[in-house]
Amino acid sequence: MIGTLGRYRDGIVAALKRIDAAEGSQFASVNGWGVDLRRRLLEFATRGKLIRGSLVAAACEAFEGRVDDDVYQTAAALELIQSFLLIHDDIMDQDRIRRGVPTVYEQYRRHGEKNGFHDSSRFGESMGICAGDVAVLVAVAAVAGLARNATITSSLISLLAREIAAVGVAQMADVANGHAPDAATEEEIVAVYRFKTGRYTFSLPLMLGAILASAQAPVVEAISRWGELQGVIFQVRDDQLGIMGDVADIGKPTGSDIRSNKQTLHRLLLLERVRGTEWEDVANLFGSPELSDAQIKRVRTALVETGTIAELDRRIGELRDAAARELEVLSISDPARSIFRAIDEYNATRSA
Amino acid sequence: MIGTLGRYRDGIVAALKRIDAAEGSQFASVNGWGVDLRRRLLEFATRGKLIRGSLVAAACEAFEGRVDDDVYQTAAALELIQSFLLIHDDIMDQDRIRRGVPTVYEQYRRHGEKNGFHDSSRFGESMGICAGDVAVLVAVAAVAGLARNATITSSLISLLAREIAAVGVAQMADVANGHAPDAATEEEIVAVYRFKTGRYTFSLPLMLGAILASAQAPVVEAISRWGELQGVIFQVRDDQLGIMGDVADIGKPTGSDIRSNKQTLHRLLLLERVRGTEWEDVANLFGSPELSDAQIKRVRTALVETGTIAELDRRIGELRDAAARELEVLSISDPARSIFRAIDEYNATRSA
Repeated sequence: MIGTLGRYRDGIVAALKRIDAAEGSQFASVNGWGVDLRRRLLEFATRGKLIRGSLVAAACEAFEGRVDDDVYQTAAALELIQSFLLIHDDIMDQDRIRRGVPTVYEQYRRHGEKNGFHDSSRFGESMGICAGDVAVLVAVAAVAGLARNATITSSLISLLAREIAAVGVAQMADVANGHAPDAATEEEIVAVYRFKTGRYTFSLPLMLGAILASAQAPVVEAISRWGELQGVIFQVRDDQLGIMGDVADIGKPTGSDIRSNKQTLHRLLLLERVRGTEWEDVANLFGSPELSDAQIKRVRTALVETGTIAELDRRIGELRDAAARELEVLSISDPARSIFRAIDEYNATRSA
Repeated sequence: MIGTLGRYRDGIVAALKRIDAAEGSQFASVNGWGVDLRRRLLEFATRGKLIRGSLVAAACEAFEGRVDDDVYQTAAALELIQSFLLIHDDIMDQDRIRRGVPTVYEQYRRHGEKNGFHDSSRFGESMGICAGDVAVLVAVAAVAGLARNATITSSLISLLAREIAAVGVAQMADVANGHAPDAATEEEIVAVYRFKTGRYTFSLPLMLGAILASAQAPVVEAISRWGELQGVIFQVRDDQLGIMGDVADIGKPTGSDIRSNKQTLHRLLLLERVRGTEWEDVANLFGSPELSDAQIKRVRTALVETGTIAELDRRIGELRDAAARELEVLSISDPARSIFRAIDEYNATRSA
């Protein structure tokens, strides 16, 4: 995958193993559950696409021309934070499959069931909450242990903690949108995209990489704005792949966003467009726990036939233009420019 | 309360308000749930006894003779971490009342119920998971923002993150003890006490305070060992107050540990002692969801009559003696010595 970004994978995986050796050996000394968690966390973190960690490395390379151990360690820490967020999100969404294998809380639920534990569902969720909590703390410890001077380390930790706190608050809105009796507005949906994906998945890793490369504050700010636009593109594409993509590529069941009635722009625009048309019946499929393949296919066809996909592709085009203008203002030259262009290209066209 | 420790409360509460102004205003800018969470977190954190934060301040004062803003800020951050842990623990234990008011996830559940949210129980738990996640990140950001030199700040963050990761792993064992078909052994119970309370509630705050006072490494280590012993005493007393204490003093329903069949030393020793005696029936009361006042009273009486309380008081005495020997070796003099003696005295005799 990911052309330009894929080449950082080995470095990030090696850093995850170093963190496991240093921090994992500490928490594994507490009891047998720590030993068990160490294995599960490393496996979970390395199974991902490592997009966020790769963006840390790419941004640092763009500005400094090289990627050192500190950069890979920060990238790995961000991937552990991604594990923390996903482990908790999967509990909230009751998703049992992630990246093609059982989610972490589901792994514990099965362990409980197999070993005659009382209320294995509750056991699984409680263990999943703890596992996520440990992951975020290990990530913080890893950044605190960088070899860079302590002033840079402190500013990285401040940025990281504040941005992830904002992700937590954006997640609250996402949770509320899934439970509230009223559908979320377009503004509310875009706000979740901005904070949960835009700032978190793009702005934050790029800023971390730029700070590690000692980039100046105005550059870091421009990169942050560019990243936020790229993140909204990423999320719209992600929602699209969740409905239109191939199950083998995306590692989770197709149609799960339709079943869970996830408040996406796709859903909102589609429901506006189907009213009074031959496609009106698809509105009833959102939020339905049992969906046949034919029903999922009907939603897909409606998204194309009503022009919803075309409209969202048009919006993605606008966001890419706005992002390109940020890079112009930044007046960066190669190799940085070509790295950012490659990220833009990947992001707008990826299929998994 | 807490004699010596109570005098740090105003300083810690002021620091919590400063953190709320600095960090809360940031995450509250994301959406309305952030504004709402800010209020709930400040209210929750200030409602506690602030024991851990007070121990940070006491240890720093013991070694440096004064308590500055950085110390109060670290103390407040630790109290936010305590909020994070309690918010998540309450979900795991399904405790709806804490500190005399509804727990955080229960507050959200009620909000969902009142506003016609779909599956308000799940909504409450999901929001509680997010609220805890935000709290720990705000705490980390607060420590990263200390005025002390960045090297001290980084070492405080490393220590904090590692010790709280260990708490998470200890909590996993605690959760597993509550679900596993076999009762926990004395060794397993004491291991949870050591990490979840000993190192976390005592060693960690005392070490943070000592590091802020620039104490030497051997002193920090001795304080850590002293704290671990005090923590085990604290937890045994806490379990005792949970069964024998007055509901008005402890802020949660008496007998909840009996109902939830919590694996305490009190339970373990009592069940060993009642076998084949007139008290044998009390074994059936542990884990029973409905308990009358008379049944709770029968457990209390059995704890006294079988000598279980006396045995645990004897063990507390031994732990205090071992702790006193750590202080001897440390050869600290007044005022530090008198501060540590006051903590020991409070800890062994508190009634709430």
